[in-house]
Amino acid sequence: MKAQRVDMFVCPMATPADTSGLQKLADSGKIRPDTLVALVGKTEGTGQHDDWGRVWADVALREWTAKFLDIPVADVAQRVIFVLSGGCPGVITPHIAAVTREMVDVTGSGDAKRLVVGRAGSEPMAPEEVGRMGQIQKVAEATHRAMADAGLTDPGDVHLVMVKVPGLTVASIRDAESRGETVVSHDLTFGPEGAGSYANDAAALGVALALGEVQRSSLSDQVVRRNWDLYSEVAMTSSGGEKRHGEVVVFGNGAGAQSELQIGHAVTKDFIDAGGLPDADDLAQRLVHVFAKSVIPGSDQVRGNRITLLDDVDAYQIGKALGGMLIASVTGRTTNYVSGGERNSHQGPPGGNIVAAVVRSETS
Amino acid sequence: MKAQRVDMFVCPMATPADTSGLQKLADSGKIRPDTLVALVGKTEGTGQHDDWGRVWADVALREWTAKFLDIPVADVAQRVIFVLSGGCPGVITPHIAAVTREMVDVTGSGDAKRLVVGRAGSEPMAPEEVGRMGQIQKVAEATHRAMADAGLTDPGDVHLVMVKVPGLTVASIRDAESRGETVVSHDLTFGPEGAGSYANDAAALGVALALGEVQRSSLSDQVVRRNWDLYSEVAMTSSGGEKRHGEVVVFGNGAGAQSELQIGHAVTKDFIDAGGLPDADDLAQRLVHVFAKSVIPGSDQVRGNRITLLDDVDAYQIGKALGGMLIASVTGRTTNYVSGGERNSHQGPPGGNIVAAVVRSETS
Amino acid sequence: MKAQRVDMFVCPMATPADTSGLQKLADSGKIRPDTLVALVGKTEGTGQHDDWGRVWADVALREWTAKFLDIPVADVAQRVIFVLSGGCPGVITPHIAAVTREMVDVTGSGDAKRLVVGRAGSEPMAPEEVGRMGQIQKVAEATHRAMADAGLTDPGDVHLVMVKVPGLTVASIRDAESRGETVVSHDLTFGPEGAGSYANDAAALGVALALGEVQRSSLSDQVVRRNWDLYSEVAMTSSGGEKRHGEVVVFGNGAGAQSELQIGHAVTKDFIDAGGLPDADDLAQRLVHVFAKSVIPGSDQVRGNRITLLDDVDAYQIGKALGGMLIASVTGRTTNYVSGGERNSHQGPPGGNIVAAVVRSETS
Amino acid sequence: MKAQRVDMFVCPMATPADTSGLQKLADSGKIRPDTLVALVGKTEGTGQHDDWGRVWADVALREWTAKFLDIPVADVAQRVIFVLSGGCPGVITPHIAAVTREMVDVTGSGDAKRLVVGRAGSEPMAPEEVGRMGQIQKVAEATHRAMADAGLTDPGDVHLVMVKVPGLTVASIRDAESRGETVVSHDLTFGPEGAGSYANDAAALGVALALGEVQRSSLSDQVVRRNWDLYSEVAMTSSGGEKRHGEVVVFGNGAGAQSELQIGHAVTKDFIDAGGLPDADDLAQRLVHVFAKSVIPGSDQVRGNRITLLDDVDAYQIGKALGGMLIASVTGRTTNYVSGGERNSHQGPPGGNIVAAVVRSETS
Repeated sequence: MKAQRVDMFVCPMATPADTSGLQKLADSGKIRPDTLVALVGKTEGTGQHDDWGRVWADVALREWTAKFLDIPVADVAQRVIFVLSGGCPGVITPHIAAVTREMVDVTGSGDAKRLVVGRAGSEPMAPEEVGRMGQIQKVAEATHRAMADAGLTDPGDVHLVMVKVPGLTVASIRDAESRGETVVSHDLTFGPEGAGSYANDAAALGVALALGEVQRSSLSDQVVRRNWDLYSEVAMTSSGGEKRHGEVVVFGNGAGAQSELQIGHAVTKDFIDAGGLPDADDLAQRLVHVFAKSVIPGSDQVRGNRITLLDDVDAYQIGKALGGMLIASVTGRTTNYVSGGERNSHQGPPGGNIVAAVVRSETS
Repeated sequence: MKAQRVDMFVCPMATPADTSGLQKLADSGKIRPDTLVALVGKTEGTGQHDDWGRVWADVALREWTAKFLDIPVADVAQRVIFVLSGGCPGVITPHIAAVTREMVDVTGSGDAKRLVVGRAGSEPMAPEEVGRMGQIQKVAEATHRAMADAGLTDPGDVHLVMVKVPGLTVASIRDAESRGETVVSHDLTFGPEGAGSYANDAAALGVALALGEVQRSSLSDQVVRRNWDLYSEVAMTSSGGEKRHGEVVVFGNGAGAQSELQIGHAVTKDFIDAGGLPDADDLAQRLVHVFAKSVIPGSDQVRGNRITLLDDVDAYQIGKALGGMLIASVTGRTTNYVSGGERNSHQGPPGGNIVAAVVRSETS
Repeated sequence: MKAQRVDMFVCPMATPADTSGLQKLADSGKIRPDTLVALVGKTEGTGQHDDWGRVWADVALREWTAKFLDIPVADVAQRVIFVLSGGCPGVITPHIAAVTREMVDVTGSGDAKRLVVGRAGSEPMAPEEVGRMGQIQKVAEATHRAMADAGLTDPGDVHLVMVKVPGLTVASIRDAESRGETVVSHDLTFGPEGAGSYANDAAALGVALALGEVQRSSLSDQVVRRNWDLYSEVAMTSSGGEKRHGEVVVFGNGAGAQSELQIGHAVTKDFIDAGGLPDADDLAQRLVHVFAKSVIPGSDQVRGNRITLLDDVDAYQIGKALGGMLIASVTGRTTNYVSGGERNSHQGPPGGNIVAAVVRSETS
Repeated sequence: MKAQRVDMFVCPMATPADTSGLQKLADSGKIRPDTLVALVGKTEGTGQHDDWGRVWADVALREWTAKFLDIPVADVAQRVIFVLSGGCPGVITPHIAAVTREMVDVTGSGDAKRLVVGRAGSEPMAPEEVGRMGQIQKVAEATHRAMADAGLTDPGDVHLVMVKVPGLTVASIRDAESRGETVVSHDLTFGPEGAGSYANDAAALGVALALGEVQRSSLSDQVVRRNWDLYSEVAMTSSGGEKRHGEVVVFGNGAGAQSELQIGHAVTKDFIDAGGLPDADDLAQRLVHVFAKSVIPGSDQVRGNRITLLDDVDAYQIGKALGGMLIASVTGRTTNYVSGGERNSHQGPPGGNIVAAVVRSETS
């Protein structure tokens, strides 16, 4: 009998196109052409929709992967999922995490569930579908396939679903409107009415739909970024203008999995809550990686006092940076995956943020 | 025998000109015209040198104080020290802390030292003195007088010295240069070579000189923002273009003082260190106020990993915001005085930041 | 027989609260308590919705005016209309233009129409009306009254309608939603889906409706910021969170008016077109003041080439600044009223911008 | 007898890595591996020192050129000079201008001097030389060689010297300081005391030295960004952290040259002066390309009125954008090379800016 063995390796990057960390992993045999399934990372740059640091990183990492797998660049997307989140304001170290998966003989009889991963690409998404039901449904469908790929059937075993979907660009809006279609927003930013926020949130609702966190009947174009009672506790989504289809990576714990790693998740109770985060002292060397959202609350009140973050011109950058500090101050490390900056989100409950941690199993 | 009784009241502000919290304190008798000695706060606005939120707050608070004390606005500065630090990015609630002091009969025989405060204004500082020895010496001299005013002689009893000094403006640079003088910088920002940073750091060295943390012989124009081994552990300084003289407020613990409050300070070991901060759970209702700096480290390395904060266009805002999050996540409240954003500083050791906390004494 | 005699005086301001220019005009008798009808200006500051420079200017100018008119501050709005537009990026000199009006005996028999002015305040506008039909209709109604006040009946004689309306704030949104109402946007900026833009554009459509530039039947909540074929050629609108009602000032040329001044307007054909602007050499000393909009085109194409302005994080500031340069480079002066930065607008036709100029009549 | 024949082709770019315009020129034979001597352009991105749009463009253009010339990427710098200036705020279309040069038989006997070009790379520049005499002298030396390469001996025939030099980075500062060297600034921006500004200005003084516009005896480390009477009227310089040596391209008009093109230059008299610019109507189809600087004046006065540009947080972006508008509004096109945003510069006289235009000869 065979089961998944999943591993994860975090490489700091010195520039957006720095593939030296990956090359070292390849040289050491830690990642192999037949085991590499996902590259998930934070890239330096503006974090805005025209973040050339992220775009360049995407190009450079795909070129490296194509060489590593000895396949054309155009075929890379079918073999390895890329989730690159742009913007490292503050204390977020630019990095790439390589995820490997192989099928190995089941040796132990341990009953603890261990890390598994599954992935899927979605159908292409038209500009007019961004931030709307079209995007929600295509993400949900891909999430189902990614769960199947991970060998997971119980949504309770799913602790993190990373999704990257298309956003809008000046060109794609023009394209849609030239065909008589409308788009969800003419604002290209991740502001409260920005296309980036709508795309991220439609993706989150897609995950929530797939996992049964929200019902199909409660969803429509109108609830996106309006009804905050609808959310996923495990979705971390981002979007980029250059994409044409969505990519989904599901992380969970599976029975029989042979990984040394496990994953868990928590939700913070408000924007300054660090309570649920894995503490550096507790975890010592066991912590492998943290994935966290830093969504700005929609209210200007935190524990009864007013904050002016909603007024800040650079609220998007600052909101993301604050999440990075929260995680770094607790875990004692800066190589954390922290995306965010949107105001309100269907990623997590109102005010709270999602954090997932991958740890090395104590008994390994 | 008489001794100081010092109290401190923190009022959130709804706008830069909101004096309703102070009025409430006045109405309740908590602050009186003869006890009010200092107003220290954070004001919303850009936090830049032309931060009209801070300027307007200064005007409005002075007008309120003049009425409260029934004196002309021009005389307010001789009675009450104002330290307003502009910019509340992220999770810093705009607020004003009123500090009162009265001389009361010594009743208890407790041997614990309690909170005392002293204040002094400096000689006027010319634009050409900003960020240079002239400013250092005038701040040192004022610090000595403020210590005396607090009844403190041992620098070890001093836990916080807040200083506000003149910075530079387009007009004051022109003034200096029209008289044949040079100025320390033509950069009006708080960037690494900005006049705001030079002013803040000269003020910090002035405090360090007064407290014996650095020797007079080691000081010169050339060491400001160059020799980071010279620093104060208790100086928190800020600067504003509209000022013409410095203002110093010394907080410490004095033998015989009759205050219910005590003050302490600590220095963080690096930019993401929250170790020394007063924890919400420990202090429960005892914590009255926190004063903290959030100076960006001069290096791009935090615990061995690269961060890109030094590259961020809005590093000044983000650096200040990150300090606010660090304090808020640990103390569980957002009404903290957090100034910062400068890159490197003589306020605290290289990489570390100063935090001071005022607490209600356990035995009071 | 009596007729209007209108004059206009432009005072540069050294700070947001600088009333020295107005005081000088008052001292010289150029403005009198019974002749001052409007203060229109550009204030320095961020130009964003929480621009404390503009708010402070508003407070200071109202206080000055109350003293000048010897009435309570609360009554000033009934006597003098204030239109302050925040943000002077680039080459726009902060200034205030005082507009005076008096009824004088008709002496000349000249047939040239001369400058007249009329003003009106609107009904209060609730947060839920901002950017919607409620705001449109209340502005239209006030515009009619302002035209009547100016003595104008032919819309063709109207060359400039300045409107200032309420925008949204965190507090006003909360207020509306607590009453079960919705608001047009949760984005407080002047971005493409920002409340500031919706407010400005509803005001512009209100003017267009009043002047017959658009028909009532073509208006609805849905056309605001969607149907760009609907626009006014003479509306210049701005909005601020602190306002509760709209203010309208109509400028036109009236038969029989005794003013030395005349006004005209033009529309540029695209974002870089300076063709219609009054040229410094031509007008020499005759040019009194320029009022211009600088709305960013919704397309990323200018005369067939792509520009990246729509992608700029600071497009709002840059867009406004570019309009300032266009006017300054042609007129040779920087004391111009230039507002803008929005992306697309109902102020002027798609791509084009409105410019109005007040000149001293050649024959005066 | 042989003489230079120089041509210039301007290609808009759709992304930083868009080489399709160059490929089209290559396919049509307009540029050939043996004629391509320089690529000069504006790239979209932040325009800051960590502008990944510019860095990526540099990588992509070098790769394309290596393939085009069929040489290793590392050898490209010896064959083709790259001058890429980052940041296209406002109305500056991202573009690349290809400059070709070939030696052809002298056929005409026209006495009009025509466009020639010369280029040279400098010696490597250490971080400690940036913004100082080391950089000045190495640029001067390279300028001499570039003039020789252009066949020019009279500085009066030189109308444009484009220089790209190394700036500073966090890493290069650390490198210098680890060797006991100092650097000119710890500020990595193009602010008034920023390393980027010092680098640009040392390069400008290097050109001025080479052309005899300033004397060797008047130069020292101390005059850089201090003595504004020292300047070049034809230097346009930029800097980037990733560079290790300078690159110089000289454009001028040479006797006997067989080019269809000519070049001229002018200096504006102040920041809003468009007087010297080539007008769209005059030049009609003759204008090939414009190269312009947009340096912010060091004073806050323009023609007697105060502007707040020096206070603007985003003065660097706005300053550059304003230059773009000035050129676009006069020439009627947006594909202009406009660099700038620095405050004061040795590129042009105090307050004035340099503009150079390449036109097709009327008699060609």
